[in-house]
Amino acid sequence: MKKTTQLKTLLASDRLELLLEAHNGISARLVEEAGFPGVWGSGLSLSASLGVRDCNEASWTQLLDMLDFMSDATGIPILFDADTGFGNFNNVRRLVRKLEQRGIAGMCIEDKLFPKANSLLEGVEQVLEHPAIFAGKIRAAKDTQADPDFCVVARIESFIAGTGLDDALQRAHAYAEAGADAILIHSKKTTADEVLSFRRAWEVPLPVVVVPTTYHTTPTEVLEKAGFSVAICANHMLRSCISAMQRTAQAIRAGRGIPPGLDLAPVKEIFRLQNNAELEEAEKKYFPAPASR
Amino acid sequence: MKKTTQLKTLLASDRLELLLEAHNGISARLVEEAGFPGVWGSGLSLSASLGVRDCNEASWTQLLDMLDFMSDATGIPILFDADTGFGNFNNVRRLVRKLEQRGIAGMCIEDKLFPKANSLLEGVEQVLEHPAIFAGKIRAAKDTQADPDFCVVARIESFIAGTGLDDALQRAHAYAEAGADAILIHSKKTTADEVLSFRRAWEVPLPVVVVPTTYHTTPTEVLEKAGFSVAICANHMLRSCISAMQRTAQAIRAGRGIPPGLDLAPVKEIFRLQNNAELEEAEKKYFPAPASR
Amino acid sequence: MKKTTQLKTLLASDRLELLLEAHNGISARLVEEAGFPGVWGSGLSLSASLGVRDCNEASWTQLLDMLDFMSDATGIPILFDADTGFGNFNNVRRLVRKLEQRGIAGMCIEDKLFPKANSLLEGVEQVLEHPAIFAGKIRAAKDTQADPDFCVVARIESFIAGTGLDDALQRAHAYAEAGADAILIHSKKTTADEVLSFRRAWEVPLPVVVVPTTYHTTPTEVLEKAGFSVAICANHMLRSCISAMQRTAQAIRAGRGIPPGLDLAPVKEIFRLQNNAELEEAEKKYFPAPASR
Amino acid sequence: MKKTTQLKTLLASDRLELLLEAHNGISARLVEEAGFPGVWGSGLSLSASLGVRDCNEASWTQLLDMLDFMSDATGIPILFDADTGFGNFNNVRRLVRKLEQRGIAGMCIEDKLFPKANSLLEGVEQVLEHPAIFAGKIRAAKDTQADPDFCVVARIESFIAGTGLDDALQRAHAYAEAGADAILIHSKKTTADEVLSFRRAWEVPLPVVVVPTTYHTTPTEVLEKAGFSVAICANHMLRSCISAMQRTAQAIRAGRGIPPGLDLAPVKEIFRLQNNAELEEAEKKYFPAPASR
Repeated sequence: MKKTTQLKTLLASDRLELLLEAHNGISARLVEEAGFPGVWGSGLSLSASLGVRDCNEASWTQLLDMLDFMSDATGIPILFDADTGFGNFNNVRRLVRKLEQRGIAGMCIEDKLFPKANSLLEGVEQVLEHPAIFAGKIRAAKDTQADPDFCVVARIESFIAGTGLDDALQRAHAYAEAGADAILIHSKKTTADEVLSFRRAWEVPLPVVVVPTTYHTTPTEVLEKAGFSVAICANHMLRSCISAMQRTAQAIRAGRGIPPGLDLAPVKEIFRLQNNAELEEAEKKYFPAPASR
Repeated sequence: MKKTTQLKTLLASDRLELLLEAHNGISARLVEEAGFPGVWGSGLSLSASLGVRDCNEASWTQLLDMLDFMSDATGIPILFDADTGFGNFNNVRRLVRKLEQRGIAGMCIEDKLFPKANSLLEGVEQVLEHPAIFAGKIRAAKDTQADPDFCVVARIESFIAGTGLDDALQRAHAYAEAGADAILIHSKKTTADEVLSFRRAWEVPLPVVVVPTTYHTTPTEVLEKAGFSVAICANHMLRSCISAMQRTAQAIRAGRGIPPGLDLAPVKEIFRLQNNAELEEAEKKYFPAPASR
Repeated sequence: MKKTTQLKTLLASDRLELLLEAHNGISARLVEEAGFPGVWGSGLSLSASLGVRDCNEASWTQLLDMLDFMSDATGIPILFDADTGFGNFNNVRRLVRKLEQRGIAGMCIEDKLFPKANSLLEGVEQVLEHPAIFAGKIRAAKDTQADPDFCVVARIESFIAGTGLDDALQRAHAYAEAGADAILIHSKKTTADEVLSFRRAWEVPLPVVVVPTTYHTTPTEVLEKAGFSVAICANHMLRSCISAMQRTAQAIRAGRGIPPGLDLAPVKEIFRLQNNAELEEAEKKYFPAPASR
Repeated sequence: MKKTTQLKTLLASDRLELLLEAHNGISARLVEEAGFPGVWGSGLSLSASLGVRDCNEASWTQLLDMLDFMSDATGIPILFDADTGFGNFNNVRRLVRKLEQRGIAGMCIEDKLFPKANSLLEGVEQVLEHPAIFAGKIRAAKDTQADPDFCVVARIESFIAGTGLDDALQRAHAYAEAGADAILIHSKKTTADEVLSFRRAWEVPLPVVVVPTTYHTTPTEVLEKAGFSVAICANHMLRSCISAMQRTAQAIRAGRGIPPGLDLAPVKEIFRLQNNAELEEAEKKYFPAPASR
C-alpha cells in the first residue's frame, strides 16, 4: 500500500493509533522497527536535533532535506509537522509538491503566523492566523497535491493562544469545509480537559488527532474512548537520546575512557541499521571480481 | 582562543586528550557540555544518523550542511572525519575552503579510494591510495587553508588493509613531510598491539591519534604512556542513542502510551539546549511591544 | 581590502558608483571582469534564473547556496537583496551570520511583509512592515554582525506601497537611528521624481541608493548631482541572457543545427572563466606524474 | 505522456532529434518554449554557470538541487549529463532514485574515473573505467529505476582517451548487453569522422547519440542519414549568455548607465517566464479579500 494510503487509512480507522516522533533517518527507521504504523516528523525535534530553535531558524528546504533521508529509511508513512506552511498559500503549494516528491505521506499545518513559536513555550505571545486565510492554505494544498491520498491535517491553536473552545470549533468547521483530512487539536494543559471538550462538541465525521505531551498521564484508552483517531508521541525519541547522550558523555569524561556498563548498541547494530548486508549482496552482483577486470 | 588554535594546541599537548563523536547539532552541544575539549565529526555516525551507509552515499555538501549546524552549536573545535577527501587533491582544496568558512577546526583524511568503505566492516576489500597521491592531497590542503591553525590529520589505513607496519611507517613519513599536523593510525584489532607497535617505531615529533573502538578495553593510561596525543571515542553518542531509542520505542509501543519510568529528558531540557532563554531576551530588545507599534 | 570594507567605502564615497546584477557564479565573475566595483545579488534575478517567482518560493538557504558560489567566483563585494530578511528579527540574525560566513559583504532588507511580492508587479497589494518592527530587524542585524564593515542597507517601500514622501522620510530616520549603513529608496515611476524628492528632503549624512529600473532614461549624472551614492542596475544581466537565449534557441530550432553567425562565446572562453589554467598548474604541483606513483 | 516516456520515444524514433543544453530553470524553460523535445542538463554548463570547474567541484546533490528547479520549470524531458555517476555502482543506484524523484527523465553516464575532467580540455590525461566495472554501473542503474521508461545512456569516451574504434565498439556491446537504452559516442575532432566510423560499424538496434560541439559544421542531415538518433547542442545557451552578458556589462560600465540599443528582454518578460499570471489567479482563489478577513 502506498505510504499516503497507509496514512489516510490510519487516520480514518476506528481504532486509535499512536505515531512516534523521529528527527533523522535512523530514528525514523527505529520507529518502524518497533511496530508503529507511522512517523511524526516533529518540528521541535527536527530543529532541536540540528541545534536550532523551533521558530523557523532552519529553512523549510533544510527540513525537506532531512525528510528526504527519513523517507528513504522507512516503509511507513511520515506525517510532517510543517508549522504554518512556512509562509502563505503559495508557499504551501510549493511545499506540498516537494513533500510528495520526497515520499512524505502528509503534512500538518497550524493556524499561527510565520515565523512560529513553539506552542509549549511559556511567556510567548501566540498570534493566530485569520481562519479565512488559513482555510485558503488548506484549499491550496488540497488542490495542489497530485496523489489524492496525500493528507493535510489542520492544527488548531485556539487553546494555545487562549481563544477558547468556540473559536476552536469555528475554525475546525472552516478547515473541514476547506478540505482538511483531519483536525489536530492542540493543548498545553496537564490534563486532557480541553481536547476532550473539543472532541465532545465536534460532530463532523472528520478524524481528530491529539498530542498528549503535557497531558501524558491521561490513559490512551480514555483518548480512544473519547473518539480520537490518532495520538502523537511528539518528542520522545529525541528526549531519550538527550538523556542517554548526557549519561554517556559524562561517564566517558569522568572515567577518561569507556567505562563498563554503558548502555551502547554494538557497532554491528549500526551496520545492521544501515543495511550493509544489502550492499554486500549488491557488490557481488554489480561489481566485477578482480579476476574479471 | 580560535577553534582552530584550540585543536592545534590540543593535538600538540603532552597530555592525552579524548574527543567524543557527535553527529548533529544537539549531540555536539552535549559533547561540549560534558567537558570534552573537542568533537569528532564521525563519518560513520553522520551517515548512519541520516539513515545511509558509510560509503559516501551522502554527498560531501550534505555532510557540510550538518557540520554547519554542529559548528554553530558549539564553542569547542570539531575535527571532521572527511573520509578520503571525497575525490582527488582538487576536491580536497575545495573541501578545506568550505570547512574553514563553516568554522570547522580541522579535518582527517584517510589514504583509501573514493568511495570509501567503513574500516570496521568485515569481508570488504580495502584498497589504499598510492602514498604519493595521498601526500599530494595533504600538501594541497595545507597550501589552501587560510587560517594557519586549521589542522589536517592524515589517517593511515595500512593495518586495516593488511599492508603492515612498514607500510604504515613509510606512509607516515611521507604524510609528515607533506605537512600533516598529526597522524591517525587506525586498527580494527581487539587489542592495541598494532597501534602500539606503530607508536614505538614512530620517532618524528608529530602527534599520533588513535581510535580505540575495537580495543576499548585498553586503559587510556596505557595509550597515554605510549605517547599518543589524542584518543577518539568515535561512535558512542550514536550508539547510546540507538540503544535508548530502541528501548523507548518498544516500551511506548508495548504500553500503547508513555509508561512511567522511561528515561526521558524533560521538554524543558530541549528548550534549554536550544537556548530559548536567549531568544526571549532578544525579543525584548529587538521586537517592539504591541503598545509601541 | 576586505570585501566588506570595499562595500562600505563604496557606499561612503562622494562619487556615484554603479552596481550590476548577477544571479549565479559566472554572471558575478563577468560583472567583476567588466570593472564594476560590486555585485547586486538580485532577488528577482536569482529567483527567475532558478525558474521560480520573486515571492520567496525559493528558500533563503537555497539563495544562500547560490550566493556561496557567487562569492567564491568574485573578488569584489556582493550586496545581497535579502527581501524582508525572510521572517522576523531572529531570522535576520541567523541570515547575517550565514552571509558573513559565505563572504557576502552586505545585505539590503526591505520594509514589507514575508512573503514579499516583487515591487514592480502591477495589481499587487503591497503591505509595509511597521517601522518600529523593521527598525528592530536592523538593530538585530547590526548587533549580530561579526565584521564591523558588513553593510546593512534599509530599503524603503513607501513609494511602492503608495504611502508617500513623509512616510518614507519618517521611516528613513527610524532606520538610520537603528544603525542602517545606507538607505535604498525604491520607486516604480518612469521618472526619477519620487527618489529625487526624497534625496532633496534627506539631510542626514547617510548614503542613499537607487534602483533606476523603471526610470532608466534619467541620466546617471542627474542622479549623481542629486547626491545619490550608488545606483543599481538590478536585472540587466539576466535580461540580456533571456534575450540571447531566446534568439539562440529559436535559431537552432529553426535551422535544425547551429546556424553560422550566432553570437556564441567559444568553448575556450567557458574554460577561461572556470580558470582551468589554475587547475593545470595545481595538477603539476599536487598530482604526482605516473612515473612517481 | 510522462517525461520518461517522452525521452524513451524520442531516443527510439527514426528521425534525428535535437536536444538543447540548459543550466538552470529559466534556460530550461526557454529550451521548451523554442520547441525542442528535450533538455540536455549539461555538466559543463551547470558547473560553469555556478562558477566552478567541470571536474566534480560541485557535489552531486548541488547539481540535483538545480535539476529540481529545472524539472519544475519544464514539461519536456531532461536528460542529465551525470558524469561518471559520481562514484561506483552504489552511488549510481542512489543517484537514479533521486533523479526519478525530481522528475528527471534520464541520465547519461560516461566510462571515465571520478572525479572526471572535461572531455574537450587539452593536455589532460583521460583515464577510462574498466568496461566490466562500467557495465556493472549500468546494470545497477537499470535494476534500480522504479519507472521502466527512465533512460540510461552510456557515453563512451574511447575516442577522447585515444583508445580507438575497436575499444569503442567492444565497450558499446558490453554496455548494450548491460541494459543501456542508448549509446552516446563522443569525439573532440573537428570533423565527424570518428563518430561516423562508429555508427557504420554499430549493427545493434540501439540508438546512438552524438554531441557535435567540435564538429558543428557537419550538417545535421549528414548525421541523420548516418543513422544517429539524437544530436545534442551541448553548451550553446550558456555560450550565448556569456557573450550577451559580456557585451551588456561592458556597455553599461563604459556608458555609466544603460545605453540605448542594448538587447535586453523587458522586465515584463521575466514576469511572464515566472508565470506571475498564474499566481494572480491563485491569489483570487486562495487568498481572501480584505473584506472577508
